[in-house]
Amino acid sequence: MAEIGVGVIGLGRIGAFHAESLRNRVAGARLVAAAVAPPDRERLLAVGAAPCALVDDVDALLATPGVDAIVVASPSSLHHEHILRVAAAGKPLFSEKPIADSVAQARDAVAAVRRAGVPFQIGFQRRFDPAYIRAREYIAAGSIGTVEMFRGITCDRIPPVEFLRTSGGLFWDLAIHDFDAARFLTGDEIAEVHAVGSIEVEPRLAEFDDVDYGIVTLRFASGALGVCQASWRAPYGYDIRAEVHGSLGKVVAEVDEKIPTRLYRDGGMHVERHDQFTERFREAYTAELQAFVDALQTGRAPSPDAADALRSVEISDAATRSRREGRWVRVGE
Amino acid sequence: MAEIGVGVIGLGRIGAFHAESLRNRVAGARLVAAAVAPPDRERLLAVGAAPCALVDDVDALLATPGVDAIVVASPSSLHHEHILRVAAAGKPLFSEKPIADSVAQARDAVAAVRRAGVPFQIGFQRRFDPAYIRAREYIAAGSIGTVEMFRGITCDRIPPVEFLRTSGGLFWDLAIHDFDAARFLTGDEIAEVHAVGSIEVEPRLAEFDDVDYGIVTLRFASGALGVCQASWRAPYGYDIRAEVHGSLGKVVAEVDEKIPTRLYRDGGMHVERHDQFTERFREAYTAELQAFVDALQTGRAPSPDAADALRSVEISDAATRSRREGRWVRVGE
Amino acid sequence: MAEIGVGVIGLGRIGAFHAESLRNRVAGARLVAAAVAPPDRERLLAVGAAPCALVDDVDALLATPGVDAIVVASPSSLHHEHILRVAAAGKPLFSEKPIADSVAQARDAVAAVRRAGVPFQIGFQRRFDPAYIRAREYIAAGSIGTVEMFRGITCDRIPPVEFLRTSGGLFWDLAIHDFDAARFLTGDEIAEVHAVGSIEVEPRLAEFDDVDYGIVTLRFASGALGVCQASWRAPYGYDIRAEVHGSLGKVVAEVDEKIPTRLYRDGGMHVERHDQFTERFREAYTAELQAFVDALQTGRAPSPDAADALRSVEISDAATRSRREGRWVRVGE
Amino acid sequence: MAEIGVGVIGLGRIGAFHAESLRNRVAGARLVAAAVAPPDRERLLAVGAAPCALVDDVDALLATPGVDAIVVASPSSLHHEHILRVAAAGKPLFSEKPIADSVAQARDAVAAVRRAGVPFQIGFQRRFDPAYIRAREYIAAGSIGTVEMFRGITCDRIPPVEFLRTSGGLFWDLAIHDFDAARFLTGDEIAEVHAVGSIEVEPRLAEFDDVDYGIVTLRFASGALGVCQASWRAPYGYDIRAEVHGSLGKVVAEVDEKIPTRLYRDGGMHVERHDQFTERFREAYTAELQAFVDALQTGRAPSPDAADALRSVEISDAATRSRREGRWVRVGE
Repeated sequence: MAEIGVGVIGLGRIGAFHAESLRNRVAGARLVAAAVAPPDRERLLAVGAAPCALVDDVDALLATPGVDAIVVASPSSLHHEHILRVAAAGKPLFSEKPIADSVAQARDAVAAVRRAGVPFQIGFQRRFDPAYIRAREYIAAGSIGTVEMFRGITCDRIPPVEFLRTSGGLFWDLAIHDFDAARFLTGDEIAEVHAVGSIEVEPRLAEFDDVDYGIVTLRFASGALGVCQASWRAPYGYDIRAEVHGSLGKVVAEVDEKIPTRLYRDGGMHVERHDQFTERFREAYTAELQAFVDALQTGRAPSPDAADALRSVEISDAATRSRREGRWVRVGE
Repeated sequence: MAEIGVGVIGLGRIGAFHAESLRNRVAGARLVAAAVAPPDRERLLAVGAAPCALVDDVDALLATPGVDAIVVASPSSLHHEHILRVAAAGKPLFSEKPIADSVAQARDAVAAVRRAGVPFQIGFQRRFDPAYIRAREYIAAGSIGTVEMFRGITCDRIPPVEFLRTSGGLFWDLAIHDFDAARFLTGDEIAEVHAVGSIEVEPRLAEFDDVDYGIVTLRFASGALGVCQASWRAPYGYDIRAEVHGSLGKVVAEVDEKIPTRLYRDGGMHVERHDQFTERFREAYTAELQAFVDALQTGRAPSPDAADALRSVEISDAATRSRREGRWVRVGE
Repeated sequence: MAEIGVGVIGLGRIGAFHAESLRNRVAGARLVAAAVAPPDRERLLAVGAAPCALVDDVDALLATPGVDAIVVASPSSLHHEHILRVAAAGKPLFSEKPIADSVAQARDAVAAVRRAGVPFQIGFQRRFDPAYIRAREYIAAGSIGTVEMFRGITCDRIPPVEFLRTSGGLFWDLAIHDFDAARFLTGDEIAEVHAVGSIEVEPRLAEFDDVDYGIVTLRFASGALGVCQASWRAPYGYDIRAEVHGSLGKVVAEVDEKIPTRLYRDGGMHVERHDQFTERFREAYTAELQAFVDALQTGRAPSPDAADALRSVEISDAATRSRREGRWVRVGE
Repeated sequence: MAEIGVGVIGLGRIGAFHAESLRNRVAGARLVAAAVAPPDRERLLAVGAAPCALVDDVDALLATPGVDAIVVASPSSLHHEHILRVAAAGKPLFSEKPIADSVAQARDAVAAVRRAGVPFQIGFQRRFDPAYIRAREYIAAGSIGTVEMFRGITCDRIPPVEFLRTSGGLFWDLAIHDFDAARFLTGDEIAEVHAVGSIEVEPRLAEFDDVDYGIVTLRFASGALGVCQASWRAPYGYDIRAEVHGSLGKVVAEVDEKIPTRLYRDGGMHVERHDQFTERFREAYTAELQAFVDALQTGRAPSPDAADALRSVEISDAATRSRREGRWVRVGE
């Protein structure tokens, strides 16, 4: 099968991580070039940290010979624009979440992708994590019977407030992973949400009506309940856990040890935990790109797809509105 | 210190359990007699299962020589009446939760206890469980910094629907333990609640507007958030977990093994779990009675007290109303 | 059933612990008196720590009215003498391990007990610990198939060297618990042993040819192998673990948490561990006395019995000789 | 840095695994060709499973253009011969363990490698496993103080008896990993060993004086003790655990979950375990090849090296002789 030449838009934290995966760990892919703004380009070249050829902008990247597909890893506020550009160029694309800043723009982006008929995959890496995959397999196999309740929690260190200012808020940026995980694990749709939030970590979030702790109650289409908790606070490391309760049992996915090495000292046992999501999901990030490349090579449609990308944004939007308006909001309302 | 003679009202599951503890495991206590309705009395006597002298009713129990204090373990719907009777007789009393069927009656019961000036303890045994005690100690010592979010979950096997019909519902009967645990662990007050429920297990609950799954979002007086999940579904055994997130860390209390014996077979590792709350909290049930007896012997006021009993009922009531009315309800509103 | 009046010989650490259990937690038992040497008696009385009437010596204890049975908790070097005295008085007795300083004296003690026909139980409390009981149940039920290998390890804090000087050494005092556990769990006999030791903790052990680390390879009568590790070093708390490998699986008994409360801080998860064996086996120590009292009340023979007591000493002796002579030693050789 | 062209000798289980790693996951390496015996070649080609060009024998592989370095993954009994051939050709080589069938041949192989001055790495992949690396880091940092006792255990499914017949036996083939891990973790040398074995799984092992269960007591140069247990029995999956006890604490490396997904059902909790060492050490196998390639590219000497390879064989030999002769054997005696 022909090798897929990949271009990356953005070499920030996640962009650089994807570039490195594509260069070293994704079979069948070739990292061709990356588009970075000139100041970043100078910085990368100065320290010898460019993983590949660097170009100035998206147009240059799309015009680079050998670029067969694009990974969109630009700042969230530019996702919409970049998806439109790549789709217009007729290139397959993998995009980080969220695909847009608003539901309207997200619909617009999805429509553009569909119109262009290009393969599209959204970056929900948990779907490629062995723990989530196995949990879903248990559930799909009936091991816990009928799904009756979901719970997800994600706690991460708070990013700089300037990043948060344009991120869409806690639900768009962080809880969105649990919203997607809820759909992935249960096989059910989130029908309506009720959200609440508080500010405990960063008072400046109040300036743009954001929160750093949030609790979102979910009602699934089946009538089952769920809850997502999210926070920009993880002093002990990146922390996520998913629980699905069913009529016959419960499945829990959680990593409590970074490394299976336990130190016994001073009257207790100590284990280290993952510090960053890039550690926790290191393999999943590679696996999702591998799946994208495999899909392109075999002609299968990538997954999770544009519909999943759109739904996650609709839920994030509903949760944000629910929190602001103090009422239940139907997803897609 | 003089031995405390104890009389028990009711020898159902928890009453019989308390009687057995008092007889065998509570230092300084003497189980004197129990009040049971005549049919139950005949049954107990027939099988030789009476743990002590049996009398017909509360009046007879209060009149039994040597009965210094009373344990109220009658059906929940009789707690209010029995508390009034014991208080009127001037006897110290330990009562199972909830103390009444309604907030009005609960206030009435608490007022009666205060008027009588009798020592009173409410049966929140988690406060005597080593896991909860240690979690509170960590929190009180500042190990997790400022409390920023709480989460409790309790899953138990569903009791007979006839029991549930008079139990006050899921929040009064089951979630009440997490409401109290939230207060105990955080040292904060639950100010308002937002609840939702669903029926997954027992369709007949709809007849009396009850649910078997519930999620209650909490807002504490400090502004911190919390969530309690409760369900009448525990196919793998009694299941509880408490998590408290703070500015410096997180504390989790959960028992995942009934017995620290692990069986490796068939490609995996298996551990057994507690089947019943009487297994999980066996020691805590003894410890709470021991604390009650110790308090009586030393003249200290027992704890948790009537105010805790009342608050838990007010939260349960607020959650029930929130669920039915679909809105935030202030506790004590 | 009539209450059993119990007298305790010795109120050192384990004697005081047993006395407290008998007074507060063992149903059907009444703690009548304890024999303690006059200086200890004065000390106990001075601080108000006498749990019962105190008498001067074993003869006085045996003559105390109401003393139906005896718990031997004197220093190990006196066990033999005290067992002979109690047996001669025709009283049932529970003795701490080891029953003697030498195999010859142990045989003598067992013969005396048998001659007197008195019920006898040896203090191997692990047989009453839920983890060991459940492990044995799994094995007896065939859950791991045929037993093929055993491994036990026990690490404890080092006692004062003066205590060790008369204790019989590491294998007599510490590893003896794993020797008995190996027999209890596997249902097999230890046929021969090969032992080695080293001194890492306390150089003065060399004065009396003792060691503080030891490894004993076992060969069972069935031909299966095993290994016991023991050390007087446990900086992180009392540490034991048993593993039994079989043709179909493996069973492991180990307590890794003192309390099921986990603290997440500073990049890791921390759990506390048991500090002392009296914490780890608190319930088992009560349960073994309860079993002894129950046996006396029902006329059943107590277990583990004199044969178990003797066998454990024979294995300890074989291990000690193996270590000193650098060769395999048959148990009972 | 120039890409390293790699040739692989042997495409059995581990050879095929290495070839796949080199092709897809090792940066800076290019899989050029593999030498396989003609019948295997036909089979691989027939099913389209050849990962690269196939040649008939080692000479052809060494003569293949672009082959800069060799991975020796032939049957153990051919390692010695292949190492000599590759060294004679002046190529850097990575060899699976053990490097020879006898200590004499191992010394011969190591001498040949040294004479040729070619870079050499031995395949002890545990040294590249995060759990073992972290354990060593803790120990090297003094977290457990002075090392006082080691314990390793490795249980695996039994290979075909015909493989075992030429494998050198349980200690050469399986326990050798723990011997090396003991050296790696403690930083100490194993000075002498005392071994015992039994046959529980495969009676035909008696035909060539091998065993399927073995226990090896170790004495390190420092005087500290250790024990390695090994068995060809792992009905619940591949099972390894390392424990190092020190004056200040203990470190344990063990993976108890294949995937951090826990299923609660039927009164218990279940987790899956790794089935094969290729699952457990999947990343470590890649990491060791990556380290080899990195060393070649940077001119550093690879590690673990020929001295480590030789020492592991000397220990395996000493253990085998100890078991057969029933005595302590000094390593290298």
